[in-house]
Amino acid sequence: MKASNSIKEYIAAQAEHIEAALQCIVPSEWDVPPTLRESMNYSTMAGGKRLRPVFVLTAAEAVTGDQSAVDAATPIACAVELIHTYSLIHDDLPAMDDDDFRRGKPTNHKVYGEAIAILAGDALLTHAFYCVTMAAKQHQVSAETALSIVEDLSVLAGAPGMVGGQAADILGEQGVTTLADLEYIHRHKTSDLIAFSLKAGGRIGGANSAQLNALEQYGRKLGLAFQIQDDILDLIGDEQKLGKKINSDVEQNKVTYPYLIGLDESKAQVERLTAEAKQLLLAANLAQPERLIQIADFLMQRDH
Amino acid sequence: MKASNSIKEYIAAQAEHIEAALQCIVPSEWDVPPTLRESMNYSTMAGGKRLRPVFVLTAAEAVTGDQSAVDAATPIACAVELIHTYSLIHDDLPAMDDDDFRRGKPTNHKVYGEAIAILAGDALLTHAFYCVTMAAKQHQVSAETALSIVEDLSVLAGAPGMVGGQAADILGEQGVTTLADLEYIHRHKTSDLIAFSLKAGGRIGGANSAQLNALEQYGRKLGLAFQIQDDILDLIGDEQKLGKKINSDVEQNKVTYPYLIGLDESKAQVERLTAEAKQLLLAANLAQPERLIQIADFLMQRDH
Repeated sequence: MKASNSIKEYIAAQAEHIEAALQCIVPSEWDVPPTLRESMNYSTMAGGKRLRPVFVLTAAEAVTGDQSAVDAATPIACAVELIHTYSLIHDDLPAMDDDDFRRGKPTNHKVYGEAIAILAGDALLTHAFYCVTMAAKQHQVSAETALSIVEDLSVLAGAPGMVGGQAADILGEQGVTTLADLEYIHRHKTSDLIAFSLKAGGRIGGANSAQLNALEQYGRKLGLAFQIQDDILDLIGDEQKLGKKINSDVEQNKVTYPYLIGLDESKAQVERLTAEAKQLLLAANLAQPERLIQIADFLMQRDH
Repeated sequence: MKASNSIKEYIAAQAEHIEAALQCIVPSEWDVPPTLRESMNYSTMAGGKRLRPVFVLTAAEAVTGDQSAVDAATPIACAVELIHTYSLIHDDLPAMDDDDFRRGKPTNHKVYGEAIAILAGDALLTHAFYCVTMAAKQHQVSAETALSIVEDLSVLAGAPGMVGGQAADILGEQGVTTLADLEYIHRHKTSDLIAFSLKAGGRIGGANSAQLNALEQYGRKLGLAFQIQDDILDLIGDEQKLGKKINSDVEQNKVTYPYLIGLDESKAQVERLTAEAKQLLLAANLAQPERLIQIADFLMQRDH
C-alpha cells in the first residue's frame, strides 16, 4: 500500500485484506452443522463498508508508524466485524426491526429461518472472542494485551455498550423525545464498537494510555458524527448512491438529529465532531496519524 | 465446609456461594437500561441446579486439594452459568422451542417480550467473557490462564460446541434417527459446557495437561450420562419430584436414548459412563478427587 494512494483506495485495500481474512473465519476442520456454518458465512460475507475493522488496522498503523502490526491486528479486526455482523442479524429479526432485506440481499432469517438466524448470531458473537485469543496465539501479542481487548470488547459490545444501546432503542421506540435520549442510543448502539476498534488497534500497536484514550475518544466522536450523517442522508441523500429509499425515518416516525435540532445544525454538528476528533488525534503524538485524519474527512464527505 | 458434609450439603453450599456471586453480576454503577438489566437478572436468578458452576469450583478444589482457588474460580463459575442462562433464554424463544414456562416461572420473553429476551441473551453471553477477565483482574490468575479459558469457552460454547449442538437439534427435529445423530446433539448441546466447566476449574487450580484432559473427559462422560438420565426421568420419573410432566418426549415424538436403545440399556449406559468418568479421575493424580467422585455418584442416583 503506497502512501500516495488516495484514502478511498487505502480503505478499499484494507477492506479487501479483511474480506480475505473473514473468508475462512471458522476453521474448516471444525465440526459445525453445515447449515449453521453457511448461515454464519452468508451474513459475514454480505459486504458492507468494513469500517470498524479498517479502523482497527489503521489505528495499529497510526501507533507504530508502519504496517508491522497489521498482521497481529487482523484477528481483532475480524472479531469486531463478527460482532457487527451478529448485531445486524439479531436486529433484523421479526421481533426486533423486522427487516426482509439488507444491502439488497434477503436478511439471514429470511434465508435460514429465525431459529438458525438467532443461533448464527450467537455463534458469531462467541467466535469473535475466539478471534481475539488468536491474536496472542498466532502473533506476537502478549496475553495481557489480548485479555485487555477481551475486556474492552465484553464491555463495549455488552449490556453497558452496544446491546444496551439497541435495548434503549427498542424500549424507547415511542418515547425518545430528547437529544439526550437519542444521544444515549447512538453513543452505545454505534459509537461504542467504533471506539473499541480504535482502542483495540491502539493496544495492538503498543499505544500508551494517553494515546489509547485519544484513539477511543476519536472513535466516540466519529461514531456519533457517522450516525448523525446517516440521519442526514436518510433525509437528503441520493437513493441511487445510498442503494435504499430515503425518508424511511420520517415514514417510520423515527426521532432523528435533523428532527430534533434541524438539518443545518445537524450538519454543523457533524463538522464540529469531526474537527474535534481530528484535533484529539493530532495532540496524541501518534507516529503516523495521517490516515485516521483522512478517514475522518472522508466520512464527513460521504454520500452513502 | 467440613469434609464430613454429605455431598448434597456440599453442592448446596457451593451453589449458595454462586448465587451470592451472581446477585450483582453486572456492576451496579454501569449505565444499563433498567429493563435490560432486570431481564438479565430475572433469568440469572431463576434458580436451577447450578451444576456447571459447582463443577468449576469443585474441579479447582480437586486440583489444589483445598479451597485456596475457590475465590479465583468464582468469576469463571459465574461465566459458565451466564452462558447456560443465555442459552436457555434463546432456546425458549417462540422461533426455537417456544416454551412459556421454565422452572415454574414464565420464560424471559413472556415477561419482557421477544426483543428484550434476545438482547438479554446476547448481553449475558457477552458478559460471560467479562467475568473471565475478572479472574485475572481481581485474583491471582495469570493473563495466560485467563486467555486459555476465554479460548476454551469460545470454542465449547460456540459453533463447534453448544450452539452447534442446538443448531443440530433444531435442524434435525424430524430427521434424528441414529444414535450417532443423537449423541452429536447431546455431546455438544450439554456435554461441551460441562467439559468446559471442569477444564476451566482445573486451569484455575493449576492442573497439568494430563489432569486437564482427565477433567475434560470426566466432564464429557458425565455430561452425556446426565442427558441420558434426563431422557430416562422423562419416561419413568416422579412428576412431583421433577416439578414437570413426564412423557413430554414421547408426546413430542422426540428421539431419545430409551427410544433408540431401550430403557435398560439406557440405564446401563448411564452407569457405564459414570464408572468410566470416575476411573479417569482416579487415574489423574488429583490432590483431592473425592468430591468429584461423589458428585458423579450423586448425579447417577438423582431423581429430578
